[in-house]
Amino acid sequence: MRLQRAGIDTYRQPVVYMPADCHLCRAEGFSALARVRISLGGHTIVATLNVLTDANWLPPGTAGLSDAAWRALSAREGDVGTFAHPEPPASTSAIRAKAYGGRLDDDACKAIIEDTVAHRLSDLDLAAFVTACAGDNLDAAETIALTRAMIGVGERLDWGGGPVLDKHCVGGLPGNRTTPIVVAIVAAAGHRIPKTSSRAITSPAGTADTMEVMAPVALDITAMRRVIEAEGGCIVWGGGLELSPADDILIRIERPLDFDSEGQMVASILSKKAAAGSTHVLIDMPVGPTAKVRSVAAAEALSRRLSIVAEDMGLHLAVHRSDGTAPIGRGLGPCLEARDVLAVLRRSPDAPADLRARALDIAGAVLGMTGRETSGGDRVEALLDSGAAEAKFMAICDAQGGFSEPGEAPNRHVVSADRDGIVASFDNRRIARIAKLSGAPGRKTSGVRLHVRLGERVRRGAPLYEIHAETPGELGWALDYAEAGPAPIKLEDEA
Amino acid sequence: MRLQRAGIDTYRQPVVYMPADCHLCRAEGFSALARVRISLGGHTIVATLNVLTDANWLPPGTAGLSDAAWRALSAREGDVGTFAHPEPPASTSAIRAKAYGGRLDDDACKAIIEDTVAHRLSDLDLAAFVTACAGDNLDAAETIALTRAMIGVGERLDWGGGPVLDKHCVGGLPGNRTTPIVVAIVAAAGHRIPKTSSRAITSPAGTADTMEVMAPVALDITAMRRVIEAEGGCIVWGGGLELSPADDILIRIERPLDFDSEGQMVASILSKKAAAGSTHVLIDMPVGPTAKVRSVAAAEALSRRLSIVAEDMGLHLAVHRSDGTAPIGRGLGPCLEARDVLAVLRRSPDAPADLRARALDIAGAVLGMTGRETSGGDRVEALLDSGAAEAKFMAICDAQGGFSEPGEAPNRHVVSADRDGIVASFDNRRIARIAKLSGAPGRKTSGVRLHVRLGERVRRGAPLYEIHAETPGELGWALDYAEAGPAPIKLEDEA
Repeated sequence: MRLQRAGIDTYRQPVVYMPADCHLCRAEGFSALARVRISLGGHTIVATLNVLTDANWLPPGTAGLSDAAWRALSAREGDVGTFAHPEPPASTSAIRAKAYGGRLDDDACKAIIEDTVAHRLSDLDLAAFVTACAGDNLDAAETIALTRAMIGVGERLDWGGGPVLDKHCVGGLPGNRTTPIVVAIVAAAGHRIPKTSSRAITSPAGTADTMEVMAPVALDITAMRRVIEAEGGCIVWGGGLELSPADDILIRIERPLDFDSEGQMVASILSKKAAAGSTHVLIDMPVGPTAKVRSVAAAEALSRRLSIVAEDMGLHLAVHRSDGTAPIGRGLGPCLEARDVLAVLRRSPDAPADLRARALDIAGAVLGMTGRETSGGDRVEALLDSGAAEAKFMAICDAQGGFSEPGEAPNRHVVSADRDGIVASFDNRRIARIAKLSGAPGRKTSGVRLHVRLGERVRRGAPLYEIHAETPGELGWALDYAEAGPAPIKLEDEA
Repeated sequence: MRLQRAGIDTYRQPVVYMPADCHLCRAEGFSALARVRISLGGHTIVATLNVLTDANWLPPGTAGLSDAAWRALSAREGDVGTFAHPEPPASTSAIRAKAYGGRLDDDACKAIIEDTVAHRLSDLDLAAFVTACAGDNLDAAETIALTRAMIGVGERLDWGGGPVLDKHCVGGLPGNRTTPIVVAIVAAAGHRIPKTSSRAITSPAGTADTMEVMAPVALDITAMRRVIEAEGGCIVWGGGLELSPADDILIRIERPLDFDSEGQMVASILSKKAAAGSTHVLIDMPVGPTAKVRSVAAAEALSRRLSIVAEDMGLHLAVHRSDGTAPIGRGLGPCLEARDVLAVLRRSPDAPADLRARALDIAGAVLGMTGRETSGGDRVEALLDSGAAEAKFMAICDAQGGFSEPGEAPNRHVVSADRDGIVASFDNRRIARIAKLSGAPGRKTSGVRLHVRLGERVRRGAPLYEIHAETPGELGWALDYAEAGPAPIKLEDEA
């Protein structure tokens, strides 16, 4: 059948649209939600069928493809694809065995992950796999097998001999934008730290979104290599590098299910680090009631599992536990967070002290892993205070394509205290929602700027936070939401 | 936003199509695969978002709805719906707890099943639930809780006092079309047997498809009640009665995953029987290597579980184990199977003896459950041989809307033996596929007619099977497939 781009984004799920009366639907007995194998040139995908019952945007004899299917087949308008029933992929029996209480060995993990990246498993199969691995259902040997399988299907960067440093934060706190500062300090100290970061998924900004308002981040591997060779450090968007394509697909399923699997989390983190060619990885693990890791016991179990798998991979790993109870910095949203980062690097008098302290801690711990530096000490502070880190950061931005100063939103609204009191708590979910309604992360200058810290004493009429928006309409949306529900920053009487 | 029917069949999954640049996508941060709550009048659904990136079939300010979403909202062209972020349904935490190794109590099952029928759970959530219950992961108490919850959300028929008989086959064999015969005999014996059956899902015909070529089957509850009051028996399509709507949704997820869950199978069967108002149920359980129940041990475990749950429900239940190694009767496809059924009821000399024997066995066992009849014996044979069962069947067909004689396909092709030999085996999957390619079950007269039985001696040139098709094109498709692969009926040398 002739192929046509349907122009429908179904995220990474390949979908094919076919009219109910097409001869293939009838002859092959395809009906809605059937899995259909489509081949074109050297590419084969398995797509989910949606049947057009009463729509006329497809010419006769034509099948429409969702954006993901179109890309995966490298199709061009008018190409003719071959349609068939797919054989059930071999790995479904491994998933079934695990669901029935069995264990996954190396071969089973390899088959599942290879079928995952080849789009041979449906979303239902993937949900079954994620469910069968939930909680502590994967043991250490299974986690190692899964990590190896995930490394096996991705690109792997090779930086030559010597230590290659990296950091990773498990479950970010709002505003915890330490990465650009840490990379600048570590690279200024003469080490290599090729950092890949993600864009926002459910938050008002990811590290890649924040970095992008200061310099280009969508670099390919060749460009990334040039930056590292010149400056030792980079902060690029990992999504385009295909370092762990299986992980990108599994995350799409895990997120809406909201299932934590200790084994899958470890495999996800460490497969990406191995693929990035890192030799020394510091894991920043904020622990707190609303953080990803909620208790000291959970932190210890996760740290143990990370260490066992890292050892199998020949990776040096250290865990840096930190306080995960309160947001860090002042801004939420790409430009507002970038301004916090720049304030620290530029040693501005109004730089957020908590972000500075957190970044220095982590940079010290990263350097401490090389064995040649003392952990956390005077060295990192000197690199920051001397301006060496700022200069390195600007050089990295230049190497990535040129520095830009983050902009400021033209529309703002200050929300003030309606009483005297002490700042008792932040509703992080509501604050993030206000920032997203104002346009973040799509609108770079939109977001929320906090004017108060936990425990601060405020007077009636004093500013609590400020909504920034690129358009008056979005400012209105965000404000309506902020005013409709409970206050996102809670004030209490002084004790 | 204004609503419009997209005319896209996504099976039972509600999908909403919105342009990427619509203000809701931007303001609410909706992106592809997000869950969106849509309200209209008294109806609320949670749909999955597909984003139109490059398609122009939606007017500005309009959202398209898949067929399932359109029906669930009872929408009319131009209606204006209210869009919002859905709260995660409460039952997702019960599913998560089960995935982590916990147990489901009455409240948890009730919440999950209520959210299932209200379309508040996504396909991923449902796949997680099915996976968490796979194999023997549900114990007897959980199975009882699940069955009760499934009964709680459906219609429940009440036939007044006295026994209401029923039969159910676990995992049908090809051609095992005993139901119309059993219903006719049991009703002719003066008992009530309000039978609901399903249409084909992956087979060339379901009992409802076969019955439909002889009489209307899409009756509502009022019409079904009239038939039972007049004739004692009926064979109607259960899909339109909403007797166990949760089960209909779960089956859509279980089938592609191909997960067996003993607990879910028991809950599925018995919730439908309770909803149908049955008091005595015979379970026909074919056991064989390619049947649903593959071993005697599996049959015993399933029988025990069925009995425990039936007892909790106050339902009389008996299990009739039968041989599940070979197909029954001659025809595959609605009309061809109906002709087998009619041949038995009409005592034709060429009626398939295996179908007749099987139907008599089961009818005897059903009557035996009432305690007033002897099991299997002369009585059922007399009811068949006297023509009483045939007369009752015709009366039931008349009451359901009138009998029609099943038609014959105009295009046929006989496949003959290419050697002398003994019929050694049938590839049931390939034979079913040939019948489907010829047009069954959509084309009523299409299908396959077997000319030989297992173990039969044939000569080169003798007919093995015959493909029936309504159009020459479909006959060609089926024949191409039959000739391309291994022979679906295997001949071997005589021992």
